[in-house]
Amino acid sequence: MERKNNMMLSIKWGEDDLIILDQTKLPEKTEFITLKTVEEVWDAIKKLKVRGAPAIGIAAAYGLYVSIRDLKAECFEEFYKEFEKNADYLASSRPTAVNLFWALNRMKKRAIESKNKSIEDIKRDLLNEAHAIRNEDEEMCKAIGENFLTLLEDGMTILTHCNAGGLATARYGTALSPIFLAKDKGWNIRVFADETRPLLQGARLTTWELLQYGVDVTLICDNMAAHVMSKGWIDAIITGCDRVAANGDVANKIGTYGLAVLAKAHNIPFYIAAPSSTIDMDTPDGSQIVIEERSEDEVSCGFGIRTAPEGVKVYNPAFDVTPNSLITAIVTEKGILRPPYDKTIKNIF
Amino acid sequence: MERKNNMMLSIKWGEDDLIILDQTKLPEKTEFITLKTVEEVWDAIKKLKVRGAPAIGIAAAYGLYVSIRDLKAECFEEFYKEFEKNADYLASSRPTAVNLFWALNRMKKRAIESKNKSIEDIKRDLLNEAHAIRNEDEEMCKAIGENFLTLLEDGMTILTHCNAGGLATARYGTALSPIFLAKDKGWNIRVFADETRPLLQGARLTTWELLQYGVDVTLICDNMAAHVMSKGWIDAIITGCDRVAANGDVANKIGTYGLAVLAKAHNIPFYIAAPSSTIDMDTPDGSQIVIEERSEDEVSCGFGIRTAPEGVKVYNPAFDVTPNSLITAIVTEKGILRPPYDKTIKNIF
Repeated sequence: MERKNNMMLSIKWGEDDLIILDQTKLPEKTEFITLKTVEEVWDAIKKLKVRGAPAIGIAAAYGLYVSIRDLKAECFEEFYKEFEKNADYLASSRPTAVNLFWALNRMKKRAIESKNKSIEDIKRDLLNEAHAIRNEDEEMCKAIGENFLTLLEDGMTILTHCNAGGLATARYGTALSPIFLAKDKGWNIRVFADETRPLLQGARLTTWELLQYGVDVTLICDNMAAHVMSKGWIDAIITGCDRVAANGDVANKIGTYGLAVLAKAHNIPFYIAAPSSTIDMDTPDGSQIVIEERSEDEVSCGFGIRTAPEGVKVYNPAFDVTPNSLITAIVTEKGILRPPYDKTIKNIF
Repeated sequence: MERKNNMMLSIKWGEDDLIILDQTKLPEKTEFITLKTVEEVWDAIKKLKVRGAPAIGIAAAYGLYVSIRDLKAECFEEFYKEFEKNADYLASSRPTAVNLFWALNRMKKRAIESKNKSIEDIKRDLLNEAHAIRNEDEEMCKAIGENFLTLLEDGMTILTHCNAGGLATARYGTALSPIFLAKDKGWNIRVFADETRPLLQGARLTTWELLQYGVDVTLICDNMAAHVMSKGWIDAIITGCDRVAANGDVANKIGTYGLAVLAKAHNIPFYIAAPSSTIDMDTPDGSQIVIEERSEDEVSCGFGIRTAPEGVKVYNPAFDVTPNSLITAIVTEKGILRPPYDKTIKNIF
């Protein structure tokens, strides 16, 4: 399997096939699978073999190409009817994944733009569009990392939460991008990774990615972060985000808000890595963001082992909201945003 | 099995036997076992079937009585030689458990005080001493709970961490004592219980105890506490403690310090439940307290399932230190201590 700078790519276009790293097998097994049909792509997205908003979009774009690669059609209308049916099918794999629809719509737009070309040329254009979606994501992640590097220094120790790494994107990730780029520069950056209950994305994915790349990473439980900060060991905290409101309030994985409060109490800079596409100008502030509540079993019966009494009530919010006042900077591919966020966010659009 | 106010007792003296609730089976199974020999008591302490400092002391005291119950001896010296050998044996079950030594020494002192009595009378005195150790613990826990009730009100919601409940003591526990007593008064107290990684004592034990008693309890992951506080749902935080320094700094289960920082940021009172025996006047402040680091496997391979890559570094401190400035009050059986703790702590000794 191709490795570039020791970075495992979660999605790769092979000879003429979509190859993904099966993330459900991590960290125990590093298993790549070739997806040869649209049904296999649908299944991989559905079962979280590929996960992370950008990665899902990229997989879906390639999957849509795979779905029509061998399609015989007399005319564009016949081609497009089948193509659109496959797009709808792929969209049903993760019905709440905004990036999935965005990528599929972009592919549809490209097909329509190429409608006067031969079917073979349309197919080629669609493969190129999928490549473009992938490459733009990599460039965006790299730009976030480069912007971050102006805030960091050789020798620093970074605390991160959940997984906003290369596995969720084409390459580099968002929160982890500066760490990979710093490693490339020969900087000695140390990372503490919160395990991130209940699904342990930090333990399973973040530490795995960083180990692959030779980064010095130490795993802690979420409730150890305050103690580690009090020791003076943490120079900066970096997390990803799910959505940024127009005023700079940030929704991210549960636990992010607590880290931000702790960061302020310990005078540690608290940074958010945010592709500009996650900034939602239609959401004025964090109070408008509905917090998804997930299954009780994730907490009481994690990984198939019951660790709480039958029948106990569980509160399992997937996200929390960090108010803009606790955020030192929001780092996007378009630049570093500082307070007052309502003004600085407007400036980049 | 006897239940008083629906409270499962973790240690009980039956007809003429020591009966314990096997805490390693919780919350899946409620299994009581009768310990008929000193070897069985040693094994139960060693394997954490009985856990919690006071409970270990009580079990050891009864275990020491069990060890000599059927002993035939011609004279006190012959009796005491065997008795002391058994005490040393029990002391080896958990070599760092201070309460264990304290209880065994108290039993030894009682034997020596009774040396001029008949062997049968000495045995009776020793059983009574074990009962006294147990009963004094129950009274102490109850007094802590009653002192706490003056700080709480009907309708409040309490957040707690780890397990400082009845299972670890003769009855009532320390941090959970006011919750049981409030229930007895007919108060409607709601509890949020942190699951408390890595060993999940909150999920496995605290929720179980509170459910048994009919208390409204909701389990959360540790990283959800800040979000729950920000919702305005928490009126007070109560935790137990492992050691209180002379200046009021408190060592307790990892995660306690972070909760205290979050409590301050949300203007929520932060209370410590502390038997006066946990106050260590020989430790001037928290910086003197050595933090035990435990096995990496507890974090990376909890409950037998590997959730982090082989070879990843893990930092697993068992405790943290909460500075006195973050503690609203330390509640002991002798009264409620408020800042300045260096003065108020001195006053109760």
